[in-house]
Amino acid sequence: MKAISIGLLGLGTVGSGVVQIINNHQDKLMHQVGCPVKIKKILVKNIDKARDFEIDRNMLTLSADEIIDDPEIDVVIEVMGGVESTKEYLLRAIRNKKHIITANKDLMALYGSELLEEATHNGCDLFYEASVAGGIPILRGLVDGLASDRITKMMGIVNGTTNFILTKMSKYGSPYEEVLTEAQQLGYAESDPTADVEGLDAARKMAILATLGFSMKIDLSDVSVKGITSITKEDLDYSKRLGYTMKLIGIASRTDEKVEVSVQPTLLPEAHPLANVNDEYNAVYVYGEAVGETMFYGPGAGSLPTATSVVSDLVMTMKNMRLGVNGRSAAAPQFEKCLKKPDEVYSKYFLRLHVKDEVGVFAKITTLFAKHSVSFEKILQLPIKEKDSAEIVLVTHRASLQDYENILNQLKDNALVHNIKSTYRVEGDEA
Amino acid sequence: MKAISIGLLGLGTVGSGVVQIINNHQDKLMHQVGCPVKIKKILVKNIDKARDFEIDRNMLTLSADEIIDDPEIDVVIEVMGGVESTKEYLLRAIRNKKHIITANKDLMALYGSELLEEATHNGCDLFYEASVAGGIPILRGLVDGLASDRITKMMGIVNGTTNFILTKMSKYGSPYEEVLTEAQQLGYAESDPTADVEGLDAARKMAILATLGFSMKIDLSDVSVKGITSITKEDLDYSKRLGYTMKLIGIASRTDEKVEVSVQPTLLPEAHPLANVNDEYNAVYVYGEAVGETMFYGPGAGSLPTATSVVSDLVMTMKNMRLGVNGRSAAAPQFEKCLKKPDEVYSKYFLRLHVKDEVGVFAKITTLFAKHSVSFEKILQLPIKEKDSAEIVLVTHRASLQDYENILNQLKDNALVHNIKSTYRVEGDEA
Repeated sequence: MKAISIGLLGLGTVGSGVVQIINNHQDKLMHQVGCPVKIKKILVKNIDKARDFEIDRNMLTLSADEIIDDPEIDVVIEVMGGVESTKEYLLRAIRNKKHIITANKDLMALYGSELLEEATHNGCDLFYEASVAGGIPILRGLVDGLASDRITKMMGIVNGTTNFILTKMSKYGSPYEEVLTEAQQLGYAESDPTADVEGLDAARKMAILATLGFSMKIDLSDVSVKGITSITKEDLDYSKRLGYTMKLIGIASRTDEKVEVSVQPTLLPEAHPLANVNDEYNAVYVYGEAVGETMFYGPGAGSLPTATSVVSDLVMTMKNMRLGVNGRSAAAPQFEKCLKKPDEVYSKYFLRLHVKDEVGVFAKITTLFAKHSVSFEKILQLPIKEKDSAEIVLVTHRASLQDYENILNQLKDNALVHNIKSTYRVEGDEA
Repeated sequence: MKAISIGLLGLGTVGSGVVQIINNHQDKLMHQVGCPVKIKKILVKNIDKARDFEIDRNMLTLSADEIIDDPEIDVVIEVMGGVESTKEYLLRAIRNKKHIITANKDLMALYGSELLEEATHNGCDLFYEASVAGGIPILRGLVDGLASDRITKMMGIVNGTTNFILTKMSKYGSPYEEVLTEAQQLGYAESDPTADVEGLDAARKMAILATLGFSMKIDLSDVSVKGITSITKEDLDYSKRLGYTMKLIGIASRTDEKVEVSVQPTLLPEAHPLANVNDEYNAVYVYGEAVGETMFYGPGAGSLPTATSVVSDLVMTMKNMRLGVNGRSAAAPQFEKCLKKPDEVYSKYFLRLHVKDEVGVFAKITTLFAKHSVSFEKILQLPIKEKDSAEIVLVTHRASLQDYENILNQLKDNALVHNIKSTYRVEGDEA
């Protein structure tokens, strides 16, 4: 029986995991797919690099063309990263009728629609489960498991690096810079951590999730993003004091046919299930009109979990090959994109500010909120060491983003306010 | 374009949910499947019964034959329950080349293999996602999401009724009988709650999960079962005192190629994620060699969540119909069944017993454990009101089931032991 032949672009940690899983699970793969599976060629940067597992040197190549143009290769697995040249490789592979598995969220967030369209046009599969949350089968859950339901909201922790950092900062009171260094030493953060800590990685994943969950083409630029770099020990202390846990939360919500997609540090009630997802773990809450709430939880990254997702996608592709039905699973979006305006996005907010310490200031500030019909759920007023200053920490009731931003702008211009120290969205206690 | 035609066996709560989802989501279904979907006939017990939604009386029938023998009907959805006659209906429907969706765990646990074989033989799909955990897409996660991984353990809360009861008993200290009555009033427990509270419902689901997850035909009779009816307030109080939460836990674990499947009240450390799954919710932890731990969480029952699963299976079947590839997804088990013997099942145990209150008793009892090489992790000894008695509560280190049962038998025969009050498995703190 003819084996299915794989070309691998990249042999970093995920690529190595893929090689090992395919080699170690030949029986299981054979049982599921009905024919042998072999890796034919692997694109690497350096053929002579020492690797911690055995690999036939003849399988390695420095030229992507040897994979893309090899008529014997059925499926290309892309785990090399990068965007522009990677996209060109994959487009060429698709035009050569090769099926694609990718773990590349940057690529999918930017060019997912274009690649999927080209794949469908060429009768090829393009699967990308591993691009969202390492080992959690969330995309399949959204597409198949909740196929008949109307998803109204997805809320999740979709970046392992920032969750690791926030967990350590909250638990041990360590400052951001120190925990970042630890995360880098442990391999949980890149030497350039920008994409993670500024929320871009999470934003890419939320764009992919929203596109699938709402059947609407959401671009990366539609996601409003704020990272974790400005979170202070004081913010975490006040959060705790008010019964909240700080997490970097991605939210995609839909009201009627209008959606909002955002990533930002968010306060959740301590008892909320997402508040208890710690370290490098990820979890995504999905709210469906019929099903209610479901959650998918698992490792958000890591060589083997991500490789597991890649090989699961490979199994799906190979089953489709045996059945002759590739290229039929990517449905074009059902709805036109329609984003909520700031006066349609509602949330509670945490606000910490330093004000002039004199009689009547508090009343003047609360009056400003009242003018915009925003009321308070919690208020703390505390003396601080700085001369002539008092600190106010408050949590509002639900307000529109537009009203809240108007209030912030007026506070900034108000002579009684010395400093707006921080503000965060508060979620998860709608009751 | 020709519509796909559905026959529905049963119009109880789940059946009603299915009708409403299909009627309310015509656009979404059409978008996913590419053709209209209509329900043609529904088997009911009483045509004139008042229903809380509108339904065309002409669709209702008292005769299953009108569905099973109707050549126009493509898919039969079975939500009527029952085992023997239901099995005959479905076998006949399959022989008439109809695809089957069922939410019936009793049926699948007993006759799943036979039905799946007949379906494959006739080129028909048979899907049963809704039979395991209401709205959680766990079966798809096991089959597709973790396709390439080797699952070593599944541990879960798979019965909503008992989880509701144990949650209330633990939280409010209410006795079992009182909470059961409340659960019945709220519709969370049947008027005859035996299948739920004796653990049979959970056992059926674990048999289905183990069969799929381990690719090995596990029968209901292979599952060792203990229910929750003998759990007392004292047991719950001691659990709490020792830092544990009591849950009815289904475990399916595999060591090399030997498996153990069981359902029993189990103590979990309070911080364990399953310890925090409350009320009628379900959750299943899945451990894979490559992926590590993942969890699926959601409503365990309920009309709409279960109906969502049913309609998701329907979407899958209809997609397969459009592609002409029905009847290919049920893989026969890969492995011969091989169950662990009692000396191969390892766990920690909680034991509460009343002993004679005299000098040296404690030493004699601990010596008995030592003879079987079982040591202790935690011990409490307390005075009690009964004359001449003391109470001992202990948690062992990991021991084989065989050693532990030998110890229990010797304790029963020992004149110093007045009474073995209770014993439970302890899981989730392997570290």
